Amino acid sequence: MADWQTTVTPAALARLLAGARLPEPPGARRPAYRTLAGQVRLLVSEGRLPVGARLPAERELALALRLSRTTVATAYEALRAEGYLRSRRGSGSWTALPEGAAPPSDALHPVPPDEQGRTLDLGVAALPAPQPFLSEAAARAVEQLPAYAAGHGHYPTGVPVLREAVARRYTERGLPTTPDQILITIGAMGALHLVQRALIGRGDRVAVEAPSYAHTLQSLRIGGARLVPVPYAWPGGPRPVPGSGSGTGPRRGAGGSPQPEWDLSEWRRVLTGAAPRVAYVIPDFHNPTGALVREEQRRELLAAARAAGTVVLADETTAELGWGVPADAPPPRPTAALDRSAQVVTVGSAGKLLWGGLRIGWVRAAPALVRRLATERVYSDVGAPVLDQLIAAELLDERQLPAVRAHQLARLRDTAAALTGALGEHLPQWRFTVPPGGLSFWVSTGTLSGAALARAGEHLGVRIAAGNRFGSDGAFEHHIRIPLSVPAAAVPDAVERLAAVAARAADGGRWHGADDSHPLAV
Amino acid sequence: MADWQTTVTPAALARLLAGARLPEPPGARRPAYRTLAGQVRLLVSEGRLPVGARLPAERELALALRLSRTTVATAYEALRAEGYLRSRRGSGSWTALPEGAAPPSDALHPVPPDEQGRTLDLGVAALPAPQPFLSEAAARAVEQLPAYAAGHGHYPTGVPVLREAVARRYTERGLPTTPDQILITIGAMGALHLVQRALIGRGDRVAVEAPSYAHTLQSLRIGGARLVPVPYAWPGGPRPVPGSGSGTGPRRGAGGSPQPEWDLSEWRRVLTGAAPRVAYVIPDFHNPTGALVREEQRRELLAAARAAGTVVLADETTAELGWGVPADAPPPRPTAALDRSAQVVTVGSAGKLLWGGLRIGWVRAAPALVRRLATERVYSDVGAPVLDQLIAAELLDERQLPAVRAHQLARLRDTAAALTGALGEHLPQWRFTVPPGGLSFWVSTGTLSGAALARAGEHLGVRIAAGNRFGSDGAFEHHIRIPLSVPAAAVPDAVERLAAVAARAADGGRWHGADDSHPLAV
Repeated sequence: MADWQTTVTPAALARLLAGARLPEPPGARRPAYRTLAGQVRLLVSEGRLPVGARLPAERELALALRLSRTTVATAYEALRAEGYLRSRRGSGSWTALPEGAAPPSDALHPVPPDEQGRTLDLGVAALPAPQPFLSEAAARAVEQLPAYAAGHGHYPTGVPVLREAVARRYTERGLPTTPDQILITIGAMGALHLVQRALIGRGDRVAVEAPSYAHTLQSLRIGGARLVPVPYAWPGGPRPVPGSGSGTGPRRGAGGSPQPEWDLSEWRRVLTGAAPRVAYVIPDFHNPTGALVREEQRRELLAAARAAGTVVLADETTAELGWGVPADAPPPRPTAALDRSAQVVTVGSAGKLLWGGLRIGWVRAAPALVRRLATERVYSDVGAPVLDQLIAAELLDERQLPAVRAHQLARLRDTAAALTGALGEHLPQWRFTVPPGGLSFWVSTGTLSGAALARAGEHLGVRIAAGNRFGSDGAFEHHIRIPLSVPAAAVPDAVERLAAVAARAADGGRWHGADDSHPLAV
Repeated sequence: MADWQTTVTPAALARLLAGARLPEPPGARRPAYRTLAGQVRLLVSEGRLPVGARLPAERELALALRLSRTTVATAYEALRAEGYLRSRRGSGSWTALPEGAAPPSDALHPVPPDEQGRTLDLGVAALPAPQPFLSEAAARAVEQLPAYAAGHGHYPTGVPVLREAVARRYTERGLPTTPDQILITIGAMGALHLVQRALIGRGDRVAVEAPSYAHTLQSLRIGGARLVPVPYAWPGGPRPVPGSGSGTGPRRGAGGSPQPEWDLSEWRRVLTGAAPRVAYVIPDFHNPTGALVREEQRRELLAAARAAGTVVLADETTAELGWGVPADAPPPRPTAALDRSAQVVTVGSAGKLLWGGLRIGWVRAAPALVRRLATERVYSDVGAPVLDQLIAAELLDERQLPAVRAHQLARLRDTAAALTGALGEHLPQWRFTVPPGGLSFWVSTGTLSGAALARAGEHLGVRIAAGNRFGSDGAFEHHIRIPLSVPAAAVPDAVERLAAVAARAADGGRWHGADDSHPLAV
């Protein structure tokens, strides 16, 4: 497509190779071609050599590295066989990633591999991008770029075409919305950060569901808010006592299993008694439980919040992820559709339905608040990236979104089915409710603490999000969140490894010292 | 390239047209085709219709709008003539932007047009993107996207290939740097926001240059920092008394004009006396003055800061913009190259040299601080967008950057020359020093206050950044910042309009009520 390609000179590659240290078993000797191939593989998987970069010709590289041409040729051949290199006569060789290879990773908190070098990240609840939709939308967005490139590229409220697309999607979902009610942000977290800074001061009370989204709870704590947790009710059984881990919680089940609900008498008590500044809720396919709150409950919460003068902050990051809702049932209306007094501020995101790498979210609020947030953000992030906004607008388009959504929901549905089966087989003592949507199962681990599981996991190459991250003050000690981000085909192996972690954790306190406080349970 | 194109259905276009209200002179009547053409033009320029969208066939649109086919055909013909529409037999018609048209704008704080409908934004100091470099790099980045799309897309420290590229660029500039010293952020403002939250508490003292970058000053104020301003020294004349506007300031001049410097005795007094937590400086082509601080002065500041236990926060957003430095002179070394005690934290950005619409900046710091900032940011912006990082890595590549930089510097150099000439002709009483680089001239407006100029400008379609935004507590009342963002060819007209604003401002206090506090002086 472009007539210019990333080309790595022999000298540049030699420099990169010098910095690519392979884990070497002590005393091991391996042929030079295997070392070279292993180094190139490492550079590509860590993203230090971009995918699609043209490598030097064999002869030139041999000269630069003082190796024989045969060594380089054999290394290239090995890389081609593994899928890390592609060649075409006359065009040379360029780097590639094999089908199914892990993408270049962030080095911040890598999962330590087990003895066989395997890792399994169950800390993050997020999907890969829907392909080829993302790449195709990106290519179309690039074609629109020249019109924007003529300006300075700053859009504190958002690029108009995306504000229109988000407003249109709300209207389609049953909530008439105009573009001036939409502020485009850096993901949902950027939206929550802006709203929090504008509406919540140090010492302000904020009512939150228990459990709730770990990162928001932590962000509120950092901002000095006082959290007032309101536990979920579990019909068909007594509410699980946070941290008790007793067997009285929800039962495992397929369709028809009892779904958690808001405990409205508790909500009324908190709203009346504490008059919190804000109530933060995730009514649609809640993180971590996947619960979907009935419209009647939403109405009652809004009435109680209105009486208390409380702003309802509705986090709809997962609202489009109803993979267990019958195809002919209409998706839930946005909570703000029930609002008659402009007291609901909604946060949404392209990060969970589309892709987290886009970093596009939004706030839906009264135009005056949108303008205020836009004015304040010039001192933090200025605005969202233009190209990502154009891509999100393409994917949210009414002629694209149904196919993109179907793709992502089918994936989640398959994983949920595989996970339900595999947990029943390998960890029959764990209890959970199969939710109607969302990105995770919320699992009661019986007598095992989530923190002990997380610690044992760090020794077995498995990252686990312990339940206490989703509660305030040590609640949910005997829970973990299992994300639906693993492909269905990989679920049986993942749950077997989880069972091995559980066995080791049950083995007792031999696994001290590892830190389970990695912050990536997004 | 893609086999799918944005296509606007007749119904969708009818809906958009219904919301496109044209400014209509009272009593005016215009033919239906002109109204239709005007509405489409408005939708395209405001970005509500994306560029490249395929419009309905004439007959279909005529049917949907209940207009004659001739009316629609004439409107399309008018749009084609103006460059807002392109057609090809068999492929239909699609929207376009005419050469030189303004990009879709953000509606937050639009410049109010003058009586002839013209606007001139001198509030923002930022360049358009270097084209075709940006579009070409974006196309190459899209080809790399599939490898990243397989993961969740979260990179709290940054995508490895960009961390490598930024580290390599520092090394090229004389400061050996490894990727683990680099954190990729949402532009320079995102970098400053993270550093500020980590290092500066409420009530902490922060020493700042006077003048300094308006947005950082405001961000520090919002965070509760106590600002300690340290005025610049102007050799060849007494230091201009902030706010005095007396004629003792710098003289207009071409090469050889006296350049402002740090007043080191004042810096030593402040560092010793106030022991500020942080000293925030812009040593390279400073915003707003364009000043370049000599290496010897930097060394002395670092020594004094080290003695005081003060962290030096070096803002290098404009460091690559040395358009007035002789081509054979090496660009200034980064300030951190003079640092022997890891007390310098550097902020950089792709936003000024490349494009603000990319939203890519970075922090260069000790690896431990980089890891801490990355851990804390998961509660604000999580990470920078993947595709923008790949684009920035492409453009910072050692084989791309020289051409990109030459393109942007040539543009700045031409504008600076045109501005020097035009100011001398139309506003001979204003004084300024032609700087060796950066994005603006810092202009002393004599007896006119910058705020009065900004107010008068709002009535004449001209947005002006008043000098007091760049000082703490009302300093620099008789200054304005004139950005180099206008193309050289447009400078004579721009300065004529500025002179008209000055004439009206000099006319006295008749222009009350307009608000000059728009926040977009970036």
